[in-house]
Amino acid sequence: MEMKMNLDELRAFLVRDFPQVATDFEFVEAAPPFLTLAMTASERHLRPGGTVSGPSMFGLADVTAYFCILAALGPVALAVTTSCSIDFMRKPAPGRLLCRMELLKLGRVLAVCEGRIFVEGREDKPVARASLTYSIPPSA
Amino acid sequence: MEMKMNLDELRAFLVRDFPQVATDFEFVEAAPPFLTLAMTASERHLRPGGTVSGPSMFGLADVTAYFCILAALGPVALAVTTSCSIDFMRKPAPGRLLCRMELLKLGRVLAVCEGRIFVEGREDKPVARASLTYSIPPSA
Amino acid sequence: MEMKMNLDELRAFLVRDFPQVATDFEFVEAAPPFLTLAMTASERHLRPGGTVSGPSMFGLADVTAYFCILAALGPVALAVTTSCSIDFMRKPAPGRLLCRMELLKLGRVLAVCEGRIFVEGREDKPVARASLTYSIPPSA
Amino acid sequence: MEMKMNLDELRAFLVRDFPQVATDFEFVEAAPPFLTLAMTASERHLRPGGTVSGPSMFGLADVTAYFCILAALGPVALAVTTSCSIDFMRKPAPGRLLCRMELLKLGRVLAVCEGRIFVEGREDKPVARASLTYSIPPSA
Repeated sequence: MEMKMNLDELRAFLVRDFPQVATDFEFVEAAPPFLTLAMTASERHLRPGGTVSGPSMFGLADVTAYFCILAALGPVALAVTTSCSIDFMRKPAPGRLLCRMELLKLGRVLAVCEGRIFVEGREDKPVARASLTYSIPPSA
Repeated sequence: MEMKMNLDELRAFLVRDFPQVATDFEFVEAAPPFLTLAMTASERHLRPGGTVSGPSMFGLADVTAYFCILAALGPVALAVTTSCSIDFMRKPAPGRLLCRMELLKLGRVLAVCEGRIFVEGREDKPVARASLTYSIPPSA
Repeated sequence: MEMKMNLDELRAFLVRDFPQVATDFEFVEAAPPFLTLAMTASERHLRPGGTVSGPSMFGLADVTAYFCILAALGPVALAVTTSCSIDFMRKPAPGRLLCRMELLKLGRVLAVCEGRIFVEGREDKPVARASLTYSIPPSA
Repeated sequence: MEMKMNLDELRAFLVRDFPQVATDFEFVEAAPPFLTLAMTASERHLRPGGTVSGPSMFGLADVTAYFCILAALGPVALAVTTSCSIDFMRKPAPGRLLCRMELLKLGRVLAVCEGRIFVEGREDKPVARASLTYSIPPSA
């Protein structure tokens, strides 16, 4: 799978499309059909006990999948999340979380991604798994 | 289905368990097995174009389901989200969003909720639907 | 929501499109955006202990949603299941199961349905809930 | 992850627990936490056009996940499917389908599996992806 945007171009889109959360995320690796992002959990991502909240993990999965599709589709796109299925399996310790997404299908109107969230170095014990579907606008 | 906590008691738990987001939410109605919460979308909930972000809607569904279970289970509980399936169907205009959740099952170890998110007065055109599963700790 | 096909027309499509399973299903009620089908579980739908199998319930949800969309879209359509999220909450006793689906969105390229499966007369204790997404072909 | 049952023992359970469908399935490989099953689609699995039906693919995912858990848990278990999220991404040609499941979590009360269905030799273009949750009975 060819990559139509490099990491620098993806970063520019992150700042443009997600200004409120751009500083939370960091591009780690783009190896199509895989893309890996990191999120450094700050105070507002935490639940009592210091564990990262569900909505924060959902947000990490959503942003990673969005850029996984954008990297393959190119800068013309504005994919819209249509569905997400997520399982929370373990409570992450506070700190840096990675999300590695795979683009499973890039169709004419739908794209499907699947990935996992894990503490750095513990990909064998994921804290969450997620699959997400995006609709691709006709102009794309 | 009996309600083991009233709205005032639920509000006290909201402030205690979700201090970072408590001011975003408002209890609208508790009519077991249904519970309705409202979220007033502030700047940080929005995407460009003024539409409410996916993670914000996920957060609204998660909090509403949590309190839907807490209302039935009583203050001993600390249910943990184990999974969520959510479909985003329409883009909400900025403003107040309601989430109405129904407790479909309250088992010994698992609880299941299902609900919809909609703009006030437009329950016939929901912006999202969600089903969530929670694990009930043994001490509950 | 207008209904573009009546129950007799829907039945004709059931026999045409699902010849191997048509005799398992019976149309109970069409009240758009709701459609209710019944499945009489025969030997091959059962698991040891006489409970209806997961794939049989999935099949009931899938067929009900398909006809819920067909009723609204008219006979030009050939919607394709793109995703399903299903929760199994209680074990159904052997016998007749009903599935009541609601069409939540009928978009240009995607349709979303949500519904429940229950033993006749026990809609308050559903055995399963399901949400399904279908893609609508361009020719529709 | 240790395997508590070998392929011969798993086959014996398949015949015992799923008598109506046992002849449809074949164990291909057990490499914990992965398990691969094959399904040879017969006439009753097909839709018009010769494509394998959604319920048949759901059944393949469900049986593969069940044995993926049984292999790790040992013969004492009787795990029950509590939820499934499945995305259908491509239409499979008629013939042999493989399902490769991974056991992501084996907890005290819940197990989570994730996997893909693909035509033999085309793992890079999966026809479906699925995640499934099972409850583990206390006696296990």
